[in-house]
Amino acid sequence: MSAQGDYLLWTRGELDEIRRQQGQDNAMGRSLAALEARVAASMARGIVIPGQGEAGSFEHNTHKENARVIEGAALWGRLSDNAQALAHAEELLAGYAACYRDMPYQVARNTNPPGRLFHQILNEHIWLLHASLGLALLKPSLSEARYQSLLDGLFQPMLEMFTETYRHDFDRIHNHGLWAVAAVGICAMVIESPEHLAISIDGLDGSGETGGFLAQIALLFSPQGYYVEGPYYHRFAIHPLCLFAEAIERHHPERRVLTHADGRIEKSLHVLLSTAYPDGRFPALNDASRSMDLDDEGARCAMSLLAARYEAPRELLALARQQQGCWIHANGLALLNAVQGVDTQVEATTQLFRDGPDGQSGGHAHLKRGQGLAAQHVVLTAGQHGMGHGHFDELGLSFFSRGKEVLKEYGFARWVNVETKFGGRYLKENEGYAKQSVAHNLVVVDMQSQHAANHALADERHGEISLLTGCAAGTRARCDNAHDGVAMQREVLLVESRHTETPILLDVFTLTSEQPHVYDYTFHHGGHVVRWWGSEFTALDALEVMGDRHGYQHLWKQGQCRPATGHSMTWLEGDSFHSWHQITQAPAEAFQLRVGANDPDHNLRPDAKVMTRLTATSQTFYSLFESHGHFDEALEQCGGARPQVIHFRVLPSADGLTILELTFATGRLLVVLAEPARQGESLTLEAGERPLRIEQDVTLIDLPDKARVSHNA
Amino acid sequence: MSAQGDYLLWTRGELDEIRRQQGQDNAMGRSLAALEARVAASMARGIVIPGQGEAGSFEHNTHKENARVIEGAALWGRLSDNAQALAHAEELLAGYAACYRDMPYQVARNTNPPGRLFHQILNEHIWLLHASLGLALLKPSLSEARYQSLLDGLFQPMLEMFTETYRHDFDRIHNHGLWAVAAVGICAMVIESPEHLAISIDGLDGSGETGGFLAQIALLFSPQGYYVEGPYYHRFAIHPLCLFAEAIERHHPERRVLTHADGRIEKSLHVLLSTAYPDGRFPALNDASRSMDLDDEGARCAMSLLAARYEAPRELLALARQQQGCWIHANGLALLNAVQGVDTQVEATTQLFRDGPDGQSGGHAHLKRGQGLAAQHVVLTAGQHGMGHGHFDELGLSFFSRGKEVLKEYGFARWVNVETKFGGRYLKENEGYAKQSVAHNLVVVDMQSQHAANHALADERHGEISLLTGCAAGTRARCDNAHDGVAMQREVLLVESRHTETPILLDVFTLTSEQPHVYDYTFHHGGHVVRWWGSEFTALDALEVMGDRHGYQHLWKQGQCRPATGHSMTWLEGDSFHSWHQITQAPAEAFQLRVGANDPDHNLRPDAKVMTRLTATSQTFYSLFESHGHFDEALEQCGGARPQVIHFRVLPSADGLTILELTFATGRLLVVLAEPARQGESLTLEAGERPLRIEQDVTLIDLPDKARVSHNA
Repeated sequence: MSAQGDYLLWTRGELDEIRRQQGQDNAMGRSLAALEARVAASMARGIVIPGQGEAGSFEHNTHKENARVIEGAALWGRLSDNAQALAHAEELLAGYAACYRDMPYQVARNTNPPGRLFHQILNEHIWLLHASLGLALLKPSLSEARYQSLLDGLFQPMLEMFTETYRHDFDRIHNHGLWAVAAVGICAMVIESPEHLAISIDGLDGSGETGGFLAQIALLFSPQGYYVEGPYYHRFAIHPLCLFAEAIERHHPERRVLTHADGRIEKSLHVLLSTAYPDGRFPALNDASRSMDLDDEGARCAMSLLAARYEAPRELLALARQQQGCWIHANGLALLNAVQGVDTQVEATTQLFRDGPDGQSGGHAHLKRGQGLAAQHVVLTAGQHGMGHGHFDELGLSFFSRGKEVLKEYGFARWVNVETKFGGRYLKENEGYAKQSVAHNLVVVDMQSQHAANHALADERHGEISLLTGCAAGTRARCDNAHDGVAMQREVLLVESRHTETPILLDVFTLTSEQPHVYDYTFHHGGHVVRWWGSEFTALDALEVMGDRHGYQHLWKQGQCRPATGHSMTWLEGDSFHSWHQITQAPAEAFQLRVGANDPDHNLRPDAKVMTRLTATSQTFYSLFESHGHFDEALEQCGGARPQVIHFRVLPSADGLTILELTFATGRLLVVLAEPARQGESLTLEAGERPLRIEQDVTLIDLPDKARVSHNA
Repeated sequence: MSAQGDYLLWTRGELDEIRRQQGQDNAMGRSLAALEARVAASMARGIVIPGQGEAGSFEHNTHKENARVIEGAALWGRLSDNAQALAHAEELLAGYAACYRDMPYQVARNTNPPGRLFHQILNEHIWLLHASLGLALLKPSLSEARYQSLLDGLFQPMLEMFTETYRHDFDRIHNHGLWAVAAVGICAMVIESPEHLAISIDGLDGSGETGGFLAQIALLFSPQGYYVEGPYYHRFAIHPLCLFAEAIERHHPERRVLTHADGRIEKSLHVLLSTAYPDGRFPALNDASRSMDLDDEGARCAMSLLAARYEAPRELLALARQQQGCWIHANGLALLNAVQGVDTQVEATTQLFRDGPDGQSGGHAHLKRGQGLAAQHVVLTAGQHGMGHGHFDELGLSFFSRGKEVLKEYGFARWVNVETKFGGRYLKENEGYAKQSVAHNLVVVDMQSQHAANHALADERHGEISLLTGCAAGTRARCDNAHDGVAMQREVLLVESRHTETPILLDVFTLTSEQPHVYDYTFHHGGHVVRWWGSEFTALDALEVMGDRHGYQHLWKQGQCRPATGHSMTWLEGDSFHSWHQITQAPAEAFQLRVGANDPDHNLRPDAKVMTRLTATSQTFYSLFESHGHFDEALEQCGGARPQVIHFRVLPSADGLTILELTFATGRLLVVLAEPARQGESLTLEAGERPLRIEQDVTLIDLPDKARVSHNA
């Protein structure tokens, strides 16, 4: 490791290759330019090592940035043979080494124990990881005395804090735990401390099964690679995973970490990158920002590691074009090469990610159709609860179409690192609204959240989900344990036909119960409501709050439509129209809602929502969402402002069978959904055709105009 | 004109030069590619000539597109020597010639008389203009019989309708009138009808002073070139102006149209282009879309004509970079050449555009600071009322900073060409809200609109405005006639100092009256409220409407702060924070408002507003707006979330003198505003300095920390 020309993650030869990308208009070229600018800015500021502050404060930001600069200036120094940059990194380290031992512990702000630089130890782990990578790059040219003083003043006390002071936390299987073992392990490799390396890989008990990197890999992800907290925290956990895995593979290939636990790392990279929408953003499942995307550092490392160390599928390489920059590393170069010549117009493929330690705790369907930015992407969630960051959103739906999220996730109530928003921490409205069932696109039962909004209870349960046969993008999910005495099923599919340019989303949500309940079907939409069709909309003279708990206390009722068994509404978002049509058996009231009631601290976004409400024992909500037309406001061009579906009808049929009729100007389409028990039966189309045998979950029938249909059980 | 190789606006030699730009990544190359695609798409559809329909309908859109394609296919045919494209244009013309005479008149939808293709004659003028340009390109290769049939079936009846049937409208000085004379004049040049050309240039009475193009040029714009309806209609009026002016200059240079009326055309081009924000959008003054920009066809022609026929200033050429395409014309090539090598980092310059036929009816100040997209742009309006499209917004303010409009214009209540929004026409909320005073950034008196919301009354009046000395971007405006017994004055300036990265907007709004009035200072902001500072904010339990008329009926009150003489609030929009601080002498209540009450048809956008209210005889609202910090949500980086102005204070001083003290972490800044009567007096800074003589409207004094200030009259 300490051999001249080997800097833990980089060799001199690799740095030579990376250097050749300087000035190029590609991801590596842009990342190198950004690195140069960052280092230059820090050198211009000089060495600034402040005291302690709040998240988002000058002190907090400066400590964070200094760690990046320690690694970055050392890397830039080696890349460009720049002695001043190397000296700058060294001086920063020396500055911290001079004061770190004497710093008091920070104030704890949440359940996370405090470090010295930051109010949560997690930030200090991240700090150590970057500083250690910087040390690896500097080490060959440091004097023995300087090296020793850095160890004594900074790296040893940090290791001591992480592995002794907070020993009880070190083995915790958690995304924070992954940062802890990666930081300690990488530091240990640089300063050559075999004991620390051993516990960071195999855990405190040395078994590799209850703590340490190997256990984290095996236990943190489902066998298929899914991360229980969802993509936002997945991309955060994958960052140290990529760095530590690469370091171990380079220096201890005998540990075979890249194939550990049935290739869990590769699967995890696949899942993370596959969850991204066509525009590179991650769906904001559970606690998550709505703008986190593939340009996150963790996601950049993930894409690079996948391209360099595994076989990256064309579909994911096409998605890599959404990344503006890349990991400044040999793996980043490998990605650059892999991406070259890849056709970006790759058909997206539907995937089901199974959840839980044995892959038996439900899962998450990602339905996809189309290519590139024009692709559609639906997420239906029926897996495990996301622990402390989980939302009560079993059978929750999100939908990306025509370049935007159409059925929107609300995400978290938090402005990360914005000091003036409660120090950048989670806001109380995160519990009050964002996590609650009503903040998601699903049916709320009795105005209450699933699992009584109890994390511990929800953690014990999960839904079930499978993909549908007969359709490239369809799924059926069930959850019988979210509400006492109510079984929920949701079937969702993207229907492609000659009648529409963009596939249509069908959504059949069935609730089964012996007792009457209030069912609220709800979704968040964007843009501007154009018009409610049919049912007359009444705007309210004064806005009232929808309820007093489970998120309803944060919803304004703006207007309503009288109870009816059919509702339909069109909205305009950006350059596209979207229409929703819904049929119920019992009449449902429809409400137009806006988030933001009871929000004295301005912690909620004023997002728009629609809700339909009815009271029944069992009931099915048949919904259809279509993207249509176009509007260019600047050029004042518009077309296709009216829905393409002229008529949406549910035909009578036996239990377990759903027959939907969609009428367009261009003809009629039947969509037949059959549960397994009904497969093998026949449908008669009364237009002279012979009976149709149902062989799969989904059957599409393009009908001549006058044909009539009946079901013969 | 009919000479082989001369197609009215294009010569064969010019087309050869334009052709060389094909495939280039520049504005001309992109416009050529767009033209090719448009023509190809139309040829693929074939000849479709539908009946009559609503605005935004298939019929309406197809007629509009056909006129573009007649010109476009003919142009593309000549450019690429493509006989099929020429034939396509010819067939379209022939198709219209076959049916036009027999078409009934459309249904009139507003005060505009109906045409045959469209429900307002304006659209038919536009149609004729494009079709005539197409005919000019086709003419040399048309058979005599075909040419005659086009004239008899289409062009003659159109001319007849415009100049005989609607003769009483032909001379109207109005943007519609400009389209009428340009369409008739260009058609007349192509079909060689000297009588029609004569009336289109000199008007029906032949004097050139009451109607026709020359009168339109002289009367529609102020001597400085300002167009009374504002930029949105200006860019619309300038389109036929550019086309007809170019045609006359080419074929009747003896008319000297380009220098007519003291070079009115050149001045008008200057004003239009100078009103655009740094991002190329036009401020939405009066009835206007919020997204109309320099890529509008009229604005493209304007920029090209300016570059080709006049001396275009560097500042405007730099702005031309915001145009994705250009006029496919020799003037477009001239622009392309002019733009090359122009430094885009040009310092923007403040301008005052005088309004009214003699330039004596007030005006509009455009204060600018900075370069390129980072420039700031303030508009303060104190000119004429914009006729039927005017808003009651004397002393209204808009502010662009850090790439966005920070103090926002609401614009019009209309979705142009969206059939499902009232056929794309003006919505009743345009009168109900958008035009009313409270929909603008100003002080509303007694909850009423200026001039009692009476267009006829407002048209007779105007404000007064001048630029301030001592500041590169400052203005003072007055209006004494908007409300009985209340004189209004507003002083606005952008203050650059060592204390802030981005200049600060200062806004001193004074109302003078002998009777008590309710004064509502109000502004529209975007983004998300971060926090009210100092005054405690109370969110309301139920939202109530603010009033019952003059736009107040469309405002929800969301929350309020108790009466105080100081209010301060920070919001986050995109990647930047903005803070507002206000001081009043009398305590003012502060309200947080949202647009959208009493809106059963969803015709209003739910924009955010702030209002401070007090009752007084005379009163000054001292406001300060600062742009600060940065937030990158995707990267979760944030800094500078707190205002940079720690303290904002008004120091005691005599009438006509305003001394504002701004305290930053880096020191104090005094801003002294002196009306002319006070200039020549002295200020004493009690820190050992000698008295400061006030010599200009604005004096900035950077103060040592402890200095005290007093005014010795």
